[in-house]
Amino acid sequence: MRNRIIAVIGAGQCDQRIYKMAEALGKELARNGFTIICGGLGGVMEGACKGAKEAGGLTIGVLPGEQVHDANPFVDVPIATGMGIGRNIVIVRTAQVVVAVDGSFGTLAELAFALQLNKPVVGLETWDVSEKIVKTSTPVEAVNEIIKYVE
Amino acid sequence: MRNRIIAVIGAGQCDQRIYKMAEALGKELARNGFTIICGGLGGVMEGACKGAKEAGGLTIGVLPGEQVHDANPFVDVPIATGMGIGRNIVIVRTAQVVVAVDGSFGTLAELAFALQLNKPVVGLETWDVSEKIVKTSTPVEAVNEIIKYVE
Amino acid sequence: MRNRIIAVIGAGQCDQRIYKMAEALGKELARNGFTIICGGLGGVMEGACKGAKEAGGLTIGVLPGEQVHDANPFVDVPIATGMGIGRNIVIVRTAQVVVAVDGSFGTLAELAFALQLNKPVVGLETWDVSEKIVKTSTPVEAVNEIIKYVE
Amino acid sequence: MRNRIIAVIGAGQCDQRIYKMAEALGKELARNGFTIICGGLGGVMEGACKGAKEAGGLTIGVLPGEQVHDANPFVDVPIATGMGIGRNIVIVRTAQVVVAVDGSFGTLAELAFALQLNKPVVGLETWDVSEKIVKTSTPVEAVNEIIKYVE
Repeated sequence: MRNRIIAVIGAGQCDQRIYKMAEALGKELARNGFTIICGGLGGVMEGACKGAKEAGGLTIGVLPGEQVHDANPFVDVPIATGMGIGRNIVIVRTAQVVVAVDGSFGTLAELAFALQLNKPVVGLETWDVSEKIVKTSTPVEAVNEIIKYVE
Repeated sequence: MRNRIIAVIGAGQCDQRIYKMAEALGKELARNGFTIICGGLGGVMEGACKGAKEAGGLTIGVLPGEQVHDANPFVDVPIATGMGIGRNIVIVRTAQVVVAVDGSFGTLAELAFALQLNKPVVGLETWDVSEKIVKTSTPVEAVNEIIKYVE
Repeated sequence: MRNRIIAVIGAGQCDQRIYKMAEALGKELARNGFTIICGGLGGVMEGACKGAKEAGGLTIGVLPGEQVHDANPFVDVPIATGMGIGRNIVIVRTAQVVVAVDGSFGTLAELAFALQLNKPVVGLETWDVSEKIVKTSTPVEAVNEIIKYVE
Repeated sequence: MRNRIIAVIGAGQCDQRIYKMAEALGKELARNGFTIICGGLGGVMEGACKGAKEAGGLTIGVLPGEQVHDANPFVDVPIATGMGIGRNIVIVRTAQVVVAVDGSFGTLAELAFALQLNKPVVGLETWDVSEKIVKTSTPVEAVNEIIKYVE
């Protein structure tokens, strides 16, 4: 399984359209046999976990706080780091590919970490700070790009 | 599931008798529906994961290094922290109960963290530094004690 | 002193022109009574520490590795975190203002963390990802901007 | 300076007698040219910093929280980690020798980390968990033992 963990990064609060996009992404990832790792909280993270569970996938939530109960209800494996936003690095390190959905400065920081660590990064309506980010416009397209990196 | 994650802590190298004890412990935990979280490496950690997999359980390995491939072959969910022994705190925080098997100074540090965080600690042939550690002498007995804390 | 710690962030390898700019920045910061916190390694970090020491300033190096001896020779207070690039968050949290000099993805990640934490960010020939970054073109100008945030 | 950083570990709350002992230890360390690194909070940490400042020493406080202002008033260099008790590892890694004064489970965890990392440990009325801990009964005696490790 360890070659098939994909990080979904994005804001903890988002509008309905982005939430639905994250949910569709999570579903498509799970359908393709991927496990999702994310920050375990709301917004894009929750959408992705919800979608993954609809398709029977496994979800990991690496939390900033000290309590596993902070996780959204769609997280199977909550990890309580107590490290604050330092937990973002753990998410990126563990994933084979990182997908960014929308997002603000926190997402930019995770994206930049991923690029620093030479992880493949796929973007869905996110920051455009490097040509190394594979830009896509739908969840299906994003998953098709991810598949290329995980033979 | 988040109320049923048990940390198994112990040395990365151990003799055959202790390995077998860790394996029996992992098996008994999985039989009782517990997920195991550990440091993901060899010795006691590997024994516990191996046992859990024999009984169909789920295993989480929170690794000190930067690569998920450092995990022993019985880890389902490898988490690559890149934090070195700092990862021990993540293991303890995430667990509802901590079981210590044998172990040297690393195990003592995790045990002490668990006591500092007021987590229940069950011991199997381990450090005797506090009366708060529930001393047991077999894996079955240890799991019986754990069950008391997770209604 | 704790209101007067400024983070200098930038790449661990840089050309001579950028090194000189970092050195001038460090000198100007120390002249104005600021303590410098940085990642403690080479390139921009070393330049800034060297400049600060020329002006009698105090320098803190928060290292990714496990050994204080990894610090460049101009670091007064080496902190060995063993957390890898996770140490970048510690640098940003501790500083009252962050100055970015040039830099690649690692600098972008630190910049983004600073913006996420609402720290003031001053830029010298660095990433242009937000209008919140106060753009400056010389070390003297950068320090003049920093002073505005630390009365 | 980097060979002369000594960690003083102990509880954040203590009685007057232990506080005075920590203060005398800090003073004696500073007189001998040592820099003190500690957790930056109250109790033994504050006593040691206060003593060090009385003798003109430098003090580093590696804080669990996100704000440098959490440091006790005798900390010269506050480091805000936001890592909670994970910061204890940073303290131990950075020090050349660790001195433990009294203390509860948090101190035991730090002590155990120090032993795990093969750092010399000197104890003053603290946990007796290993013969590797050099037991002493006064601050002067403790500093005399420390000196042996820092040629």
